[in-house]
Amino acid sequence: MLNPALIKEFKNIVGAENVFTDDADLLTYSYDAAVVKPVVPALVIRPTTSEALGRSVKVCGENGLPVTVRGAGTNLSGGTVPTAREGVVILTNGLKRILEINEADMYAVVQPGVVTAQFAAAAQAKGLFYPPDPGSQAVSTLGGNVAENAGGLRGLKYGVTSDYVMGLKFFDTNGEIVKTGAKTVKCATGYNLTGLLVGSEGTLGVFDEITLKLIPLPAHRKAMMAVFNQIIKASEAVAAIIAARIIPCTLEFMDNFTIRAVESYSRAGLPTDAAALLLIEVDGHPAMVEEDAVKVEEICRQQGAVDIRVAKDDAERDKVWAARRSALSALAKLKPTLVLEDATVPRSRIPEMVQAMQDIAAKYRLEIGTFGHAGDGNLHPTILTDKRNTEEWERVEAAIAAIFDKALAMGGTLSGEHGTGIAKSCFLEKETSPATIQYSRAVKAALDPRNILNPGKIIGG
Amino acid sequence: MLNPALIKEFKNIVGAENVFTDDADLLTYSYDAAVVKPVVPALVIRPTTSEALGRSVKVCGENGLPVTVRGAGTNLSGGTVPTAREGVVILTNGLKRILEINEADMYAVVQPGVVTAQFAAAAQAKGLFYPPDPGSQAVSTLGGNVAENAGGLRGLKYGVTSDYVMGLKFFDTNGEIVKTGAKTVKCATGYNLTGLLVGSEGTLGVFDEITLKLIPLPAHRKAMMAVFNQIIKASEAVAAIIAARIIPCTLEFMDNFTIRAVESYSRAGLPTDAAALLLIEVDGHPAMVEEDAVKVEEICRQQGAVDIRVAKDDAERDKVWAARRSALSALAKLKPTLVLEDATVPRSRIPEMVQAMQDIAAKYRLEIGTFGHAGDGNLHPTILTDKRNTEEWERVEAAIAAIFDKALAMGGTLSGEHGTGIAKSCFLEKETSPATIQYSRAVKAALDPRNILNPGKIIGG
Repeated sequence: MLNPALIKEFKNIVGAENVFTDDADLLTYSYDAAVVKPVVPALVIRPTTSEALGRSVKVCGENGLPVTVRGAGTNLSGGTVPTAREGVVILTNGLKRILEINEADMYAVVQPGVVTAQFAAAAQAKGLFYPPDPGSQAVSTLGGNVAENAGGLRGLKYGVTSDYVMGLKFFDTNGEIVKTGAKTVKCATGYNLTGLLVGSEGTLGVFDEITLKLIPLPAHRKAMMAVFNQIIKASEAVAAIIAARIIPCTLEFMDNFTIRAVESYSRAGLPTDAAALLLIEVDGHPAMVEEDAVKVEEICRQQGAVDIRVAKDDAERDKVWAARRSALSALAKLKPTLVLEDATVPRSRIPEMVQAMQDIAAKYRLEIGTFGHAGDGNLHPTILTDKRNTEEWERVEAAIAAIFDKALAMGGTLSGEHGTGIAKSCFLEKETSPATIQYSRAVKAALDPRNILNPGKIIGG
Repeated sequence: MLNPALIKEFKNIVGAENVFTDDADLLTYSYDAAVVKPVVPALVIRPTTSEALGRSVKVCGENGLPVTVRGAGTNLSGGTVPTAREGVVILTNGLKRILEINEADMYAVVQPGVVTAQFAAAAQAKGLFYPPDPGSQAVSTLGGNVAENAGGLRGLKYGVTSDYVMGLKFFDTNGEIVKTGAKTVKCATGYNLTGLLVGSEGTLGVFDEITLKLIPLPAHRKAMMAVFNQIIKASEAVAAIIAARIIPCTLEFMDNFTIRAVESYSRAGLPTDAAALLLIEVDGHPAMVEEDAVKVEEICRQQGAVDIRVAKDDAERDKVWAARRSALSALAKLKPTLVLEDATVPRSRIPEMVQAMQDIAAKYRLEIGTFGHAGDGNLHPTILTDKRNTEEWERVEAAIAAIFDKALAMGGTLSGEHGTGIAKSCFLEKETSPATIQYSRAVKAALDPRNILNPGKIIGG
């Protein structure tokens, strides 16, 4: 329990109704979507103005209270799990105003608590497109997306969150405003602190305002499903599509295990006897969309697709994408513990990586469902287990390490889009070098000498 | 003159033939393309291997020697002007190997000294496209482009250098290797040090290897020139094209002063009686290109273009682009001193900014030629002067400050693509905040405590 004088101070800043100290409230914010040990915070606060947010950070800084900023807690690496030492969780769901959508200059300014899908819909209403679409977009927040550098289904063609952050205003560890980037499409002024802050998981500053790039909505799109009776053929089709220099906006993979889980959950009409599916969407100018769709279909057939189903309208398309987006929830119903990895490989290595997942599942005698953004080389092998079964859990941990080793051996990376958080910080040196860790720690120590901004994430410590 | 034992050590590392101490050599590397005071270095070295580069940095670090890494010295902000205190210039033109162009995964790995246009040509030979094309691409290096976050003519559609840097290996201030980013299209592992290093102007590390993203070559393109008899109509046409949600790959502006200088220099057949020109290129799928070209032409005519000339073939197109690229050289011939600014505004504000340039030229009685990347809001007002004329130079400095103030008042930025360097560091706080400067200085101090990596750039000091 925090010092009552401090609690009173927070009440003055954010209002008594926005300070939470009950056990039930505190417990609610002790965990996120990752499989890491929950930590109960000492206090949860919910600022509703920029000024209150800044003053809250300042008070935390002055009193050495660790701050964990939390959007929707959908991250999969433990980025929003609080710190044991009298942690303060700052909720951003009181800061959810879209401050500006500038149609002429195609940018928007938002507060961190704006929900991703709601923002994308607001942009779309003005004929503009915000492409990043993490699987959790219906609830995830833009602040969380920026903090984790969230990816999504359209990364292949449109990139990830970092490709859309033009500028930031954020509070430093003293609660002072730092301003970086611009509302212009080019900016080479000062250090690229915007670049540094994206993906920094709340460890280097607390976002106040985010300036996001928007682009014109694509004129046309076409979605299709390619059905395979061998998993390896589906993965080879992915590599063949990319090799043909076609860049679909989405190119998603699902293995049989995932198909069955998703179909049982969503009843979208997926072929449950398929060994694997590719869900493909092309978008852009209508003529290009038609040509690309024909080429994609040809390639899939050449690679052994037994069926190709083209969505006849948006409703059919939306149904399939909704099913795909339910994969995590669908799989999570099957077992008490779900570990969703996102080691990523150069996309031409997808067939090898799919094979490696099967080998690892067999070797460690585990159920691993694999789905994900095959076009990005970003698969999500999903291990279903029960953490209370310690013998099995040891095999799970060994399998995770094996997945990381495979990905790195193929020139890949530990995390495509889920971040490092607590879950992967101990693996960081494997991919980088001792000097990289030191360099990263030096940045953190300089910018947050009292170590109050989400301690323990990314670089441990 | 440096301590002879140190010179001997550098000769051991890079070879005697790659250590330069003659006055003529040292003088050659005392300046770059910016109008800032030249500083003669104590030593110039030219490593030809990655290992020699790393060892050179280490020796500089151990001996407190300031290191200024230099590609082609084409930057316009003083980023490659050495430091007075026994500065060592490290040339990268001995490190110019393209280490890999991966066609399947569409990336390349290069050494820092590779010339931009040569790299783009090598990618094109494999059917791949490296879009960033700074005006100086024929001689500029990729290391310099990354250090300065160089832009170019295609920024409007394709972005700038930072949009293509997937990963870096660089030497820290101790000569140790730091590794950041990946060869995958998504990477959320560790801090985004890649983002921080892009545009850091050699102050945070010395690039060893750069991993660059490539994309498929656009299938088709079409270039045209729109001729206007009023400058304001040309600038309004820019805003109208963007408002119509057309994204040309280039949308360049030239005023009459620039047109006449360029035509006299390049004999490309530009209309020297035009008040202003727009040079426009659209690219992509052939059907889209045709439609966009028709729309652009319509918009230009509606906005008062008196002539539209469509390039009939690549030769004609290339001739006009070569002329445009000669603008800096053409203007530089007219007077002893040329100051090329790049304050940038949200693109819808281009008409206001063009008007502001004219007002500033009149107020301060200066010749200002204006050209540049209008579609990005990134104009290059170019002041022709003679720095030895101190009375006029004071007016030039006042005009520059006025340009910055105007750009910031319109929600713009000090530099779109030329960097902060020495030339703009004193203006940085105007755009940001005191805390931003402190935050930036804290990063620098932590990563380079002896202040040996290109001291004095970006944040001064």
